[in-house]
Amino acid sequence: MNILDHANQQREKLVFEHFTELVKAPNGDLARVGQLSDALNDPHSLQMMVEFLLRHPQGQRAFEERPRLGTVNLQQLHQLPPNTLGYLYANHMIKNGLAPLAAREIAEDDYSFLEAHLTETHDIWHIVTDFQTDILGEIQLQAFYVAQIHPIPLFLALIAKNLLKTALENLEFSEPLMEAVTRGWTLGKQAKPLFGIHWNKLWEKPIDELRGELNLNGV
Amino acid sequence: MNILDHANQQREKLVFEHFTELVKAPNGDLARVGQLSDALNDPHSLQMMVEFLLRHPQGQRAFEERPRLGTVNLQQLHQLPPNTLGYLYANHMIKNGLAPLAAREIAEDDYSFLEAHLTETHDIWHIVTDFQTDILGEIQLQAFYVAQIHPIPLFLALIAKNLLKTALENLEFSEPLMEAVTRGWTLGKQAKPLFGIHWNKLWEKPIDELRGELNLNGV
Repeated sequence: MNILDHANQQREKLVFEHFTELVKAPNGDLARVGQLSDALNDPHSLQMMVEFLLRHPQGQRAFEERPRLGTVNLQQLHQLPPNTLGYLYANHMIKNGLAPLAAREIAEDDYSFLEAHLTETHDIWHIVTDFQTDILGEIQLQAFYVAQIHPIPLFLALIAKNLLKTALENLEFSEPLMEAVTRGWTLGKQAKPLFGIHWNKLWEKPIDELRGELNLNGV
Repeated sequence: MNILDHANQQREKLVFEHFTELVKAPNGDLARVGQLSDALNDPHSLQMMVEFLLRHPQGQRAFEERPRLGTVNLQQLHQLPPNTLGYLYANHMIKNGLAPLAAREIAEDDYSFLEAHLTETHDIWHIVTDFQTDILGEIQLQAFYVAQIHPIPLFLALIAKNLLKTALENLEFSEPLMEAVTRGWTLGKQAKPLFGIHWNKLWEKPIDELRGELNLNGV
């Protein structure tokens, strides 16, 4: 067996291991999601995502400028008017006991930026799409990610996880699950690209106005 | 560990085994699909499907009358006018080298009827939905099944299989895959129930008329 075949088999083995453990685990096992993400994001997948995102001018600019969210002062954002992105984001984070991801030092390459940007903007995507952080909202957002960034293996795998978990444990959930997939996909296709937006310049913007500009109003 | 927990763990183990083998296999490994189906269809799932189908009068009648497709003479159906269900079904079977499933003896219970009916009408569902037998058509039909019969674990698991396979091997396929899921789901929700139809009384019916009656025209 050559080295490449061996690497692929190892990757597949790890993906199946983390995937099946996620199906068995209660929802929200973020450490395991991180492991599944690492196993799926091989150089080929990362390259495909970067190439996909570079097709849009906003994506091109993002890979040139590599905007980072920077330090976020939630208490300060929480003083903004209640209809602004900043207030809603801060309120969401405080209410759910979440801390903004620390702006860790990342390597200066496209792949590191891609992963950091997607991670640190995840909760902002929840706010602008109005998808909640319960399991249905997460599924809607998973399908939304695939609609926005087609070759994104983690979110395809997470939708698959939710489908298989439902088949095994919770058949009553089939209809809302499929409605959530369809809704997330449809809204993600309709919306303008979210990847690469400088969110920290938009905290004071009224959410309705922002959603209007991004074509994020209900489908 | 009590007997029920043990049975659940054994079921889960078998499901994961057949699921991962299906992800690795080329599309169309029907023997393995049968094994996955057997592993998923425990008494609880079968009961849920039966209860779901009994909510509709056509489903109630089906479980009373247990209509079987019977012996199908493809050459004879192929003589019908080309716009009829019978001709199109026969043509599809002959073109794809498929033989109608032999009407095997089944036990006289609801679960056996459910499985036999779903199996022997699968190719008819392909014809009336106009979903092809390539991988995209199969995915459309999988989502259509879930829309028509929500608690149907096999088709949830097969959509999951196709998503995980795409994440691992074929990211270029993400967009058509998700479009197929959305289209199948939407058409399945829009259509009247197909479960329990006496298809062998409809061979001579023009397909357009039949699709009109079943709300199966394009969405």
